[in-house]
Amino acid sequence: MKKYDIDTPALLIDSAALHRNLDRMQRVAEGFGVRLRPHTKTHKSPHIARLQVEMGASGVTVAKVGEAEVMAEAGLDDILIANQVIGATKLRRLAALARHARIAVLVDSSEGIELLDAAFREAETGIDVLIEVDTGKGRCGLTDLEQIVALAEQVARAETLRLRGVETHEGHVPGGAHSEGQLEERATSAGRRLVEVADALRDRGHVVEDVSVGSTPAAPYTAVTPGVTEMRPGTYVFNDVNQMSIGQATPEDCALSVLATVISRPAPDRAVLDAGSKSLFAEPARRAFAYTDYDGFGYMRQAPAARIVTLNEEHGVVRIPPGTEFPAIGQQVEVIPNHVCPAVNLHEEFYLVDGEDVVEVWPIAARGKVR
Amino acid sequence: MKKYDIDTPALLIDSAALHRNLDRMQRVAEGFGVRLRPHTKTHKSPHIARLQVEMGASGVTVAKVGEAEVMAEAGLDDILIANQVIGATKLRRLAALARHARIAVLVDSSEGIELLDAAFREAETGIDVLIEVDTGKGRCGLTDLEQIVALAEQVARAETLRLRGVETHEGHVPGGAHSEGQLEERATSAGRRLVEVADALRDRGHVVEDVSVGSTPAAPYTAVTPGVTEMRPGTYVFNDVNQMSIGQATPEDCALSVLATVISRPAPDRAVLDAGSKSLFAEPARRAFAYTDYDGFGYMRQAPAARIVTLNEEHGVVRIPPGTEFPAIGQQVEVIPNHVCPAVNLHEEFYLVDGEDVVEVWPIAARGKVR
Repeated sequence: MKKYDIDTPALLIDSAALHRNLDRMQRVAEGFGVRLRPHTKTHKSPHIARLQVEMGASGVTVAKVGEAEVMAEAGLDDILIANQVIGATKLRRLAALARHARIAVLVDSSEGIELLDAAFREAETGIDVLIEVDTGKGRCGLTDLEQIVALAEQVARAETLRLRGVETHEGHVPGGAHSEGQLEERATSAGRRLVEVADALRDRGHVVEDVSVGSTPAAPYTAVTPGVTEMRPGTYVFNDVNQMSIGQATPEDCALSVLATVISRPAPDRAVLDAGSKSLFAEPARRAFAYTDYDGFGYMRQAPAARIVTLNEEHGVVRIPPGTEFPAIGQQVEVIPNHVCPAVNLHEEFYLVDGEDVVEVWPIAARGKVR
Repeated sequence: MKKYDIDTPALLIDSAALHRNLDRMQRVAEGFGVRLRPHTKTHKSPHIARLQVEMGASGVTVAKVGEAEVMAEAGLDDILIANQVIGATKLRRLAALARHARIAVLVDSSEGIELLDAAFREAETGIDVLIEVDTGKGRCGLTDLEQIVALAEQVARAETLRLRGVETHEGHVPGGAHSEGQLEERATSAGRRLVEVADALRDRGHVVEDVSVGSTPAAPYTAVTPGVTEMRPGTYVFNDVNQMSIGQATPEDCALSVLATVISRPAPDRAVLDAGSKSLFAEPARRAFAYTDYDGFGYMRQAPAARIVTLNEEHGVVRIPPGTEFPAIGQQVEVIPNHVCPAVNLHEEFYLVDGEDVVEVWPIAARGKVR
């Protein structure tokens, strides 16, 4: 099968770019002397997770219990659920998982620890936890050291829980960064703060094995701080327009595109694609320092000067600048999504391509696992 | 099973509100003397499509061939694919469908008509088409009457095609409308333009059976124009924050909510839900005349004064105003999405509830049908 025989919209993975990206981040982690535990939310594919482990990853990260179930079923046996797991049904599923694989979850509240310990006592098994630390993102996680210490003590007292370490998601790092210097400053400050917290817990007698940072945009900087032991980037496997916007990827580094077909050319300056927000996800491009003028809903490889100005569910409306060539009705374009993770979640399979040839089709097995 | 036993995030349908909404729109259509052909992209569920037909709908509308396949398989036998269908694989699937059900598609280009006719000649079958007219949205569809006439003539000459009518999607109607008057003016102008086009084609000897308008926000106005024969609203089955923003729904009219759990309370003014953009879809609320101050990513029934200020994939970050009560960790909230259609597309099933009881679980069978 050739690439242009694929019914659209469809997700294409450029096999060579994928392997280059996997190799590059493994070498970044080894250069820093930290373990790589990639976040699989980007690809949701056991095929790619296994490639990551084969190339040296120490385990994988997931966002939901349902994603952990898919990965464990596929043989991935060291899984961090980088999220608070709250709710009776989910805790029963978590306990079932923890009997068959090395699983850890995050905690950031006394109530959460109580619910977790109660569920695991009922299930008569145990689990590792990492305390989530907020290093600036303002989402989950605690900032105050005394509160963090109190949680560590509560974990130490809990019959079924073992403190494995501390964790942060420095997802705020690229937010509105206007220079590489600003990115670096935010990322290193997040890493330093997490190490400080780990050391303070050790001073109080706790064993802190993992000091775990996240996030692809911050990856080249956060793990610089001595004391960080693990990094959890996700997006690097594919890259996207957001990674381009902060100068960390070129279109050639983007391994994933949405293959779309031109379905309408109603005016000379307008084309319509069969890929809308149900295929590309309607997230505006991050406006950062490298591609500050880039304001479309995805980067079209065959027409980088044109812009996807509007996304409806099944339509991508393209504005074509005067004098620019654009594919005709029935022709295809490859669109790099602004944010690749939620775009992948909308599809059922990847078409792995080598040049013009489709070499494999991989199901996106952990797609849509909201629970 | 009780509502609060459902693992979250999950889609709840309030059965009574759903039935009220279905009944109300059927009566609107009957009041105008037009056929109701609801757009099933909102619910993607053959269960609800069958309810709509039982209550008087003349058939259904879908956006993609894959959605038509699901509906036809479930016994819905009169289906309009309100889209251009372009691409060899899709056209073969379309021809297979057209052998077993009454199917129509849109056309808006000479190339599209040629490709369609060629595919149907090869398949040795035929299909009805509607010419898509742009009445202001600026997406697909033609505005120029002479171009529209030329397409009608091309259809008349095509061996396998039959002109059934003209179609518009007046999706621009609510866009930035600052008053109900503005909404009404745009909607009636779209309806009048479509009837004008239909009459012009009839003057030239074409039979124009269907004069078909779309869109829930415009539904109370577009079909007012004598000569409109069919309306295709979708969102009305559930309603959403966008419908609230233009004064066409109250929270009680909203039949669908995303049930979410509070997973973190890291600061007095902040809570985090286990529903993010993978459950709610990250579409900002429309800012129109009824709820102009509403700027969150969904309306929380249990805490309408609080705001979901940030959506990441698996986290909804809530800002809680000082002095406002908010549910504790482990408690649940029901969130009305800003735009219900793309939110539904992210889930696998509906939980139909009557008060506190779950009465049925319906699969969202046409979910994720991007092709």
